[in-house]
Amino acid sequence: MKTIQVALLGFGTVGSGTFEVIMNRQREQFAHKVGADLVVKTVLVRHPAKYREQIPDQVQLTDDIDQILADEDIDIVVELIGGLEPAKTYILKALAAGKSVVSANKDLIAVAGREIYAAAAKAGKDFMFEAAAMGAIPIVHPLMEGLSANHIEEIVGIMNGTTNYILSKMAEEGWSYDQALAEATRLGYAEADPTADVEGLDAGRKVAILANLAFHCPAVFDDVYIEGITKVTAVDIAYAARFGYVIKLLGIANKQAEGVALRVYPALIDKRHPLASVNDSFNAAFVRGDAVDEAMFYGRGAGKLPTASAVVGDIIDISRNIVCGCEGRLGDSTYESCCFLPIDEVENPFFVRLTVKDSSGVLAQIGQAFGDANVSIAQVVQETLSAHDLADLVIITHSVKERNFRQALDAICNTEVVEKVESVIRVYGDIR
Amino acid sequence: MKTIQVALLGFGTVGSGTFEVIMNRQREQFAHKVGADLVVKTVLVRHPAKYREQIPDQVQLTDDIDQILADEDIDIVVELIGGLEPAKTYILKALAAGKSVVSANKDLIAVAGREIYAAAAKAGKDFMFEAAAMGAIPIVHPLMEGLSANHIEEIVGIMNGTTNYILSKMAEEGWSYDQALAEATRLGYAEADPTADVEGLDAGRKVAILANLAFHCPAVFDDVYIEGITKVTAVDIAYAARFGYVIKLLGIANKQAEGVALRVYPALIDKRHPLASVNDSFNAAFVRGDAVDEAMFYGRGAGKLPTASAVVGDIIDISRNIVCGCEGRLGDSTYESCCFLPIDEVENPFFVRLTVKDSSGVLAQIGQAFGDANVSIAQVVQETLSAHDLADLVIITHSVKERNFRQALDAICNTEVVEKVESVIRVYGDIR
Repeated sequence: MKTIQVALLGFGTVGSGTFEVIMNRQREQFAHKVGADLVVKTVLVRHPAKYREQIPDQVQLTDDIDQILADEDIDIVVELIGGLEPAKTYILKALAAGKSVVSANKDLIAVAGREIYAAAAKAGKDFMFEAAAMGAIPIVHPLMEGLSANHIEEIVGIMNGTTNYILSKMAEEGWSYDQALAEATRLGYAEADPTADVEGLDAGRKVAILANLAFHCPAVFDDVYIEGITKVTAVDIAYAARFGYVIKLLGIANKQAEGVALRVYPALIDKRHPLASVNDSFNAAFVRGDAVDEAMFYGRGAGKLPTASAVVGDIIDISRNIVCGCEGRLGDSTYESCCFLPIDEVENPFFVRLTVKDSSGVLAQIGQAFGDANVSIAQVVQETLSAHDLADLVIITHSVKERNFRQALDAICNTEVVEKVESVIRVYGDIR
Repeated sequence: MKTIQVALLGFGTVGSGTFEVIMNRQREQFAHKVGADLVVKTVLVRHPAKYREQIPDQVQLTDDIDQILADEDIDIVVELIGGLEPAKTYILKALAAGKSVVSANKDLIAVAGREIYAAAAKAGKDFMFEAAAMGAIPIVHPLMEGLSANHIEEIVGIMNGTTNYILSKMAEEGWSYDQALAEATRLGYAEADPTADVEGLDAGRKVAILANLAFHCPAVFDDVYIEGITKVTAVDIAYAARFGYVIKLLGIANKQAEGVALRVYPALIDKRHPLASVNDSFNAAFVRGDAVDEAMFYGRGAGKLPTASAVVGDIIDISRNIVCGCEGRLGDSTYESCCFLPIDEVENPFFVRLTVKDSSGVLAQIGQAFGDANVSIAQVVQETLSAHDLADLVIITHSVKERNFRQALDAICNTEVVEKVESVIRVYGDIR
């Protein structure tokens, strides 16, 4: 029986989890699942001596990528070092050296995916990245395989666990954003610098990668419009609940009449939608296709063993290809061109919370101003504030192009009754 | 470029949906996705003349399976006639004739899966059946591929759309079982004879098939303990809601200390569990594995185009294998033996609704009887009924082996205070 040999680049959280799954948890299973044995031959780390105690002697440790590239016994290179460089160079060199590659590196794939897909196709090798899209949740392979009989119309998802934990706690416990972030940091869900999570960058990378697979298009991170959750308040969440909505940070990739729209922003979503009950640090992707109708994939978007589950799933898949002599079987999925819509051209309903003068005729005046701008109002709540003769006026509009909505909002701000625009949050889906 | 040629056996709802996806919706996509063209060459139906108008002239119609088996141009046979025979014979003959096979036939695979998997492995061909497990929901391939780095501990799911529609409406609208069934029949969700759905047989077949993949074991339909939903009442649903539960028809396959337990029955499930918000005719499978932690797959379990989505996904997968020369790549996944637990040995908490005499000391007497039988009570509600000095006594126990619970219940029925056992429903998961 053949032994398939793997090199791990990096031995952090995901690297050590991947090592554990291959060398311990699944050790006895590979013969059945793959028809070959599977071992980690070499681990690349910056300071090999530091890792000698936790890695068995029969596994090589090196700080020299060339040793791995030149080793003809190594079939699969698993890139878990993250970041743009040297990860990209290592991946391209490994493919050129005739090795298939697995990567969990969303930062890299969201900007250089196409170049790597093309390099893999040229080399006739596999490049697999299930863990880079939604962590443990199988979504890359279902999009390329199980759902491949569909024209995908939309993917909308909760693509970041840290922000979902924060928004869940704000909704359930009434915490402020700062309180929820502090607790997320304490629990290790948020990093010391939480920017990539709370500003939506992490989710934006996943939107770009999923768009590659769903629409076969060359989307990159810069094609995604991104807003984070730092401006969402407990007051907005409470008003949303009164209208029957929850607020989630959504990643959305969909086809509209004039092009593909890619964006990440906090949005109101109907509390009966399956994504609305995805709470805490869980992630989910909801997919609409012309044949499948609706499907949803739910699970852990991060974590040591969950991410390793996806990485080793890819390693097993490639190993089967090696055993059958069919590496490169899936090929490059980004064969279409497409036009990406700027956010101004995207249509949504909007949730607007205004502080207005608490006098008669205010609602009529604002309604008139929205009407003049062809923005149709779906729902309104007005609530007197305790002080200063002011009121909260909360409006949900029907679907309208972002550009038109912003023009209407400018006009309304120019009326003398509006004191302040407290918040503007998009609404996902049509108003029922 | 090669043209891969398909024969469809059967042209009912799923057959015509499959034809539409291949010949119309995805026609232009196959070259990109597969690296080959893909066409339906032949359709097998009992009365070819009846179908000539709806099927284009360049597609052959036949009532003779041997014509298809002998046709060397046909690469893939798609069995959509259902039932045990002649479907099984056709599938085995097609594999022996060197063709890969796709089937949506859960009745057959739940009893003869292993024989067919082995025949495919022997022939070095693919046998794929994504549509037979959960309809449109990709779950067969994720279990064999994306989640293959896991030891699967449990699959629990809502595996039948008709019964989920009925139970959803009973909960939302307060309808009786008969009212909800009548509406399901009117909408076409329930068949004229709804037995296979409402008695849990359809879900039981899916449990057997999923157990093959999750535990690599030779489970068949007869290994699954099955109870349907016909005894569930709106009263039980209302009491369950008061305890924080919903009632769903669950298919459950899990590993317990002494073996694998396979069963289908109505059960209380915590309303915060992701399966609890799967409503109407939607299905979902919730999977626990040692690495992935928790994952859920949600979507349509039936329907013309949704089922065709899964069937054509399999056809595309096999076509890629044909192009790469690697048919049979996944092999037979049922390589383990295992012991199946009889329902008597399975542990659950229980929900019991009793009609009791409305007198002091009743609760103490019943509590004593449960305690004597080592059944621990978690929650109780007692409610006086309007007539006859009777009361409803509703109890949720902690987890207990079925055998021990039944003994305790017998003892309780022998006390003079219990007038009637109104219902006994299992509870999914530990009591919090």
